[in-house]
Amino acid sequence: MVASEIRALFAVASRPEVVSLAGGMPYVTALPLDLIGELIADLVARRGPTALQYGSGQGDPHLREQMCEVMRLEGIEADPSDVVVTVGSQQALDLITRIFIDPGDVVLAEGPSYVGALGTFAAYQADVVHVAMDEDGLDPAALAETIETLTRQGRRIKFLYTVPNFQNPAGVTLSLARRREVLDVCNRAGVLVIEDNPYGLLGFDGDPLRALRADDADGVIYLGSFSKTLAPGFRVGWALAPHAVRDKLVLAMESAVLSHSSFTQLAVGQYLATQPWREQIKSFRELYRERRDTMLSALEQLMPDGCSWTRPAGGFFVWMTLPQGLDSKAILPRAVAERVAFVPGTGFYADGQGAAHMRLSYCYPEPDRIREGVRRLAGVIEQEMLVHETFGTGTTPGRAGVQTPGPDLA
Amino acid sequence: MVASEIRALFAVASRPEVVSLAGGMPYVTALPLDLIGELIADLVARRGPTALQYGSGQGDPHLREQMCEVMRLEGIEADPSDVVVTVGSQQALDLITRIFIDPGDVVLAEGPSYVGALGTFAAYQADVVHVAMDEDGLDPAALAETIETLTRQGRRIKFLYTVPNFQNPAGVTLSLARRREVLDVCNRAGVLVIEDNPYGLLGFDGDPLRALRADDADGVIYLGSFSKTLAPGFRVGWALAPHAVRDKLVLAMESAVLSHSSFTQLAVGQYLATQPWREQIKSFRELYRERRDTMLSALEQLMPDGCSWTRPAGGFFVWMTLPQGLDSKAILPRAVAERVAFVPGTGFYADGQGAAHMRLSYCYPEPDRIREGVRRLAGVIEQEMLVHETFGTGTTPGRAGVQTPGPDLA
Repeated sequence: MVASEIRALFAVASRPEVVSLAGGMPYVTALPLDLIGELIADLVARRGPTALQYGSGQGDPHLREQMCEVMRLEGIEADPSDVVVTVGSQQALDLITRIFIDPGDVVLAEGPSYVGALGTFAAYQADVVHVAMDEDGLDPAALAETIETLTRQGRRIKFLYTVPNFQNPAGVTLSLARRREVLDVCNRAGVLVIEDNPYGLLGFDGDPLRALRADDADGVIYLGSFSKTLAPGFRVGWALAPHAVRDKLVLAMESAVLSHSSFTQLAVGQYLATQPWREQIKSFRELYRERRDTMLSALEQLMPDGCSWTRPAGGFFVWMTLPQGLDSKAILPRAVAERVAFVPGTGFYADGQGAAHMRLSYCYPEPDRIREGVRRLAGVIEQEMLVHETFGTGTTPGRAGVQTPGPDLA
Repeated sequence: MVASEIRALFAVASRPEVVSLAGGMPYVTALPLDLIGELIADLVARRGPTALQYGSGQGDPHLREQMCEVMRLEGIEADPSDVVVTVGSQQALDLITRIFIDPGDVVLAEGPSYVGALGTFAAYQADVVHVAMDEDGLDPAALAETIETLTRQGRRIKFLYTVPNFQNPAGVTLSLARRREVLDVCNRAGVLVIEDNPYGLLGFDGDPLRALRADDADGVIYLGSFSKTLAPGFRVGWALAPHAVRDKLVLAMESAVLSHSSFTQLAVGQYLATQPWREQIKSFRELYRERRDTMLSALEQLMPDGCSWTRPAGGFFVWMTLPQGLDSKAILPRAVAERVAFVPGTGFYADGQGAAHMRLSYCYPEPDRIREGVRRLAGVIEQEMLVHETFGTGTTPGRAGVQTPGPDLA
């Protein structure tokens, strides 16, 4: 399948009768919409001349203070002057890649990794090298080895891109012990770390984990976002960067869009200032925990032997591995015909791996729909296994490679 | 002066006692803020789950229809499927440059040209070649000659960037007769035209002029914006592009930011659907016409002999030429000390020209402040002329080159 076919397929998958386990859309319907509407009306009436005007390239100073307050929940002590507000953290990724990458430079990333990041790295002709991960996240020994090998080959490694918490797509989390090791490995090798953390506050057990950036202000660029803790429709994310990078980011930001929307920045700021946002995040956590539980128990009960999957402690995603011989990309059209959608694993690798995997998201559908979706998917996989056992092959394998994500795959 | 000095200077210039004739900020205070606040509250309450969610990379379909309706005022018949919504038209410029430009490629642009576009072209290492313009806009004969010369030199010309209406910074408008000629020259040479038109509906005399795009759907990418006709704080602009380019733009958009803010797109759409937007634009025209009149009559009465300036028929800007020997960049610190600010002409050229010019904007200050600003500026220029006559030189000439614009210089 090529990108246009994927698009056509997801157009079908967006029909109401299809259970989509594909999208990464947060369940914004749970927000107090009337209240948010009112506070924005109040904002425009009182501060319209500022909210509707051009803002600065770096972003609203008060919002940047609030972003530091949010990051403090993960142990980060930051100065608002080191924060740059971006059009979602996707734009931060784009600007950072623009600043650092020359064609052929290496970017290290977990295997699998976030499809939107892979697309951006590809757009700037970076060469993504995947590093092994397991249920405790990125493997520091594998990281060290990969860096050593690449360095011996004379390759130029520009940065490590990592999603340490409830990773997209694998759903796994980098353990605390490994965080120190990953930083040590990168510091020794002089490799910058891009810590992309949209899901960090959406953990189901205990307090948020300490960020990598909390222990290394010079070697880490931290990316934050309100897309999952509030709403993606504002497109408000941020980068916290060392001084020299911060200056370059502001210049790149101005060149790219002049400035982010004052209106959405002030709307988010007003929300944070007047609403119990910590409680809202807590209620999102409860909601997603229930859906995670539903998905895991449905998988346990319904999936045929030979399938395995990760058990996320937060965030939106389960990463499933198919029985040997099955190809998730080839299965997708059949699944959509059976009214269930997922994202094939190949989209999350830059090098053609991933056919044995699929990403299942539980963030958006209601619990009974999640269960129904898993039931339908289990039926399709059983059918494929039968075909494979009988004829020695499944449906024709799909083509490999990165597709652009499409916003609903964020 | 280097970029950081310019920034420091404009920080001083933003103090209330300074009359800023520098910024390109529209006078959003004239908008019906209460009404806009209410319609957005209503939008969030009724359509929150859509407004707060991810949208498509191409942009909201209904808004794209409305954009076509706006363009119809300039004679453009367009299909909404050829429109891509962007984060201001600045982002459209950025994405187009990203798609078309390899380092060393030539971009043709009026001399002077919009500072934000020059900054973006520079960021992608395009080589900007300026084409002469006069009070009727870009000179088609000079354009043909420039293309011929460059072609003979084996240079690769990627596109012509032009602001045909009430140009930023020169305030001049491409005459109707010349529009056909410019298209002919570009068509013959196979040079794409980027028509950047943020001010087209803000003309003071009669109907909007027919857009270049209205007579050439294949050879022109048209950029529109609501920043000047509604408010820049939404950051809603668009590109209307030929099919093949449209597809590339959507992919580049997704790679850069996934999607624009659904919230601001729907807010603008709701405004257009429920408010008398044509009347609002008319009232903006009246407001800016009065300010233009005030500035022109103040210049006439107060500026010393030897100064000359353009007489804009719309938009925000007057372009002033200083008496021989004076350097606008060198004058700026003195002007700011006398509590008036402008943008030196050098920012609007990629090649170090422009020291003899300055951009004066009348869009933001109230009329009595415009008059006072011109009075102060006239005093500074008289003083500089005196120094120049006495010592044969003015203040030390400033350094040339493009600075990044800073959003308030848009």
